[in-house]
Amino acid sequence: MENFQYCNPVRIVFGKGQIAALPELIPAGSKILMTYGGGSIFKNGVYDQVKTALQNYEIVEFGGIEPNPQYSTLMKAVDIVKKEGITFLLAVGGGSTLDGTKFIAAASKFQGEDPWDILEKGTPVEDALPLASVITLPATGSEMNAFSVVSRKEKDEKLAFYSTKVFPQFAIIDPQTTFSLPPRQTANGIVDTFVHVMEQYITHPVDAALQDRQCEAIILTLIDESPKIMANPNDYNARANLFWAATQALNGWLNVGTAQCWATHGIGHEITAQTGTDHARTLALVLPALWKHQRKEKGDKLVQFGKRVWGINGDDKEKIIDETIDATKKFFESVGIKASCAEYGVTDDVCRAVAKMIGDRNAKLGDLGNIGEKEVYEILQLCD
Amino acid sequence: MENFQYCNPVRIVFGKGQIAALPELIPAGSKILMTYGGGSIFKNGVYDQVKTALQNYEIVEFGGIEPNPQYSTLMKAVDIVKKEGITFLLAVGGGSTLDGTKFIAAASKFQGEDPWDILEKGTPVEDALPLASVITLPATGSEMNAFSVVSRKEKDEKLAFYSTKVFPQFAIIDPQTTFSLPPRQTANGIVDTFVHVMEQYITHPVDAALQDRQCEAIILTLIDESPKIMANPNDYNARANLFWAATQALNGWLNVGTAQCWATHGIGHEITAQTGTDHARTLALVLPALWKHQRKEKGDKLVQFGKRVWGINGDDKEKIIDETIDATKKFFESVGIKASCAEYGVTDDVCRAVAKMIGDRNAKLGDLGNIGEKEVYEILQLCD
Repeated sequence: MENFQYCNPVRIVFGKGQIAALPELIPAGSKILMTYGGGSIFKNGVYDQVKTALQNYEIVEFGGIEPNPQYSTLMKAVDIVKKEGITFLLAVGGGSTLDGTKFIAAASKFQGEDPWDILEKGTPVEDALPLASVITLPATGSEMNAFSVVSRKEKDEKLAFYSTKVFPQFAIIDPQTTFSLPPRQTANGIVDTFVHVMEQYITHPVDAALQDRQCEAIILTLIDESPKIMANPNDYNARANLFWAATQALNGWLNVGTAQCWATHGIGHEITAQTGTDHARTLALVLPALWKHQRKEKGDKLVQFGKRVWGINGDDKEKIIDETIDATKKFFESVGIKASCAEYGVTDDVCRAVAKMIGDRNAKLGDLGNIGEKEVYEILQLCD
Repeated sequence: MENFQYCNPVRIVFGKGQIAALPELIPAGSKILMTYGGGSIFKNGVYDQVKTALQNYEIVEFGGIEPNPQYSTLMKAVDIVKKEGITFLLAVGGGSTLDGTKFIAAASKFQGEDPWDILEKGTPVEDALPLASVITLPATGSEMNAFSVVSRKEKDEKLAFYSTKVFPQFAIIDPQTTFSLPPRQTANGIVDTFVHVMEQYITHPVDAALQDRQCEAIILTLIDESPKIMANPNDYNARANLFWAATQALNGWLNVGTAQCWATHGIGHEITAQTGTDHARTLALVLPALWKHQRKEKGDKLVQFGKRVWGINGDDKEKIIDETIDATKKFFESVGIKASCAEYGVTDDVCRAVAKMIGDRNAKLGDLGNIGEKEVYEILQLCD
């Protein structure tokens, strides 16, 4: 195991009716900017619950934060923060709204010329407005970490930043708010969670025994709970178990003292940029191909995964790896997500463009830094 | 799953040589009370490492905190804190030293007449000195929680308190410091960790799927790593994996939204009071008997545990439960701990005295509150 530090101060407030706890969690007298996305919170009742809970606070609303939140949109919110003297940010919705709000928090206190520097140049975040979230989508794990991904259309860029200053002060998770999710979004969240775990688990071996087991714990939970949710979207316990799994998949526990890959995400992001395919679907497409390509480097972990999680037996390592990849693809299909280039318009031109994007950035992806432009193209050739 | 809140702000600083990071972690100018126990830190080099790291701080030392730390001892430290104007407490050693230091932190700022009220009357801790630890024993999990257990000989009492004010600010864990532990203490730590997990796992079913899997993750890690440590006490990765498992077993993750038992601890504490038997050994003695007694209430979870962790197959529930109990006892024996009344001097008189102690307190132990004096005696009759 490698040396590490870990500290995660986010307060999780989990369960039925917890939105009503907001007044106990936000300091009295705060002037709140309530951020949200495309308006699903009006349909699922969350908007009304939040407004009722916060009736004794002054609230300014800022809706319309996009999936893949845009810099230009977020900077409009920064203007409002400054003009209105906002003291607290409350993101209500999914991971994109929360990621955008983390950027608003940092940009509002930024002392330099252009807050884009936080993303592009890695300028450290010295200060940020306090923020928190009512999170309604089990997927990104943003509710319990200090990461944010922001896009800038005019520059064709999608960049991430990390700062402990943008840890949410709390995250309210009421699994009931997910009952009304379209099946497509539920499935995307399941696959997103699954692949978050894989990026931290299927690496070269590091002998971090408990972290491996904790990765497997989340995957086994997804395997058990997903069919229940697909069959009955209002199954509270299954929804609760899924949400908790999604939160734990990216709150930092899984990768302390270990290696991390994230090549599937690196390639998937570019496919989304080229084709507009849902993030989770690009992951489902790339992951099996990446494993085929990296079967030597990731073979030991794939065998462990196959034996412990999919119950694959035997001594033939290559056969176990193949069966592990197949079992994973079948799981994605079980929630309605096909790993297929044809399905997502990933033509040879797209593959070349994706590889070139990574090559142009001189990126070397993966836990071993061995996946550059050439390898990305090879991996995409291995996709179904 | 039940509703819950979770927040754990402890910074974990894990790995080789991390004691040297102390000056980055303790505010400059702090006047430190360095607390420790019976002196093992002189033998394993930890004392020297701490003193070297903190050479630019003013340090007062307070050694001699006992296993089962005594109120009278701790109150002497409180006097020193006040007389010397101590501003930071650093516990160096095992869980008892840290538990004692948590009490010193709270008692030093206590405004009432007698700090014992914190333990006996549950008087809330309004303020506490900042504290942290260099923890050298994987067992109690005290390094990442806000619990403390303190004893008072003259009252024959061993009581616990909880306050977020006594969360350690950080915990340094260097697994190398455990290489020199006597095998008996290593084994005790393994069993203590094992039973901490069981108290949070083997309850009536609650449908908290991930928490169950996370409990199993820790136990599977103990099963894999313990023989390596018993064979080679200087196996760094195995020691690291064990320590991380011990910390995670009692940092609160496992029981969010679930039921908890703790009856084995309740009974075990009284056996220690009566016979002086090591804490972990009383747990190993009581746990199998408790499961036999509560096989109806805990049966479903015992079957799940047997199938998932011990690999027991079949359809005969009662047979699986018996085999699960046997496998657990065998694991304790594999690290050299026998579950035997004869071994620990637990005579019928002791059994009656233990049951009476619990009866006198009108305690009803267990996740269902169904274990009183009569049941405790029955359980002790079922011990080997």
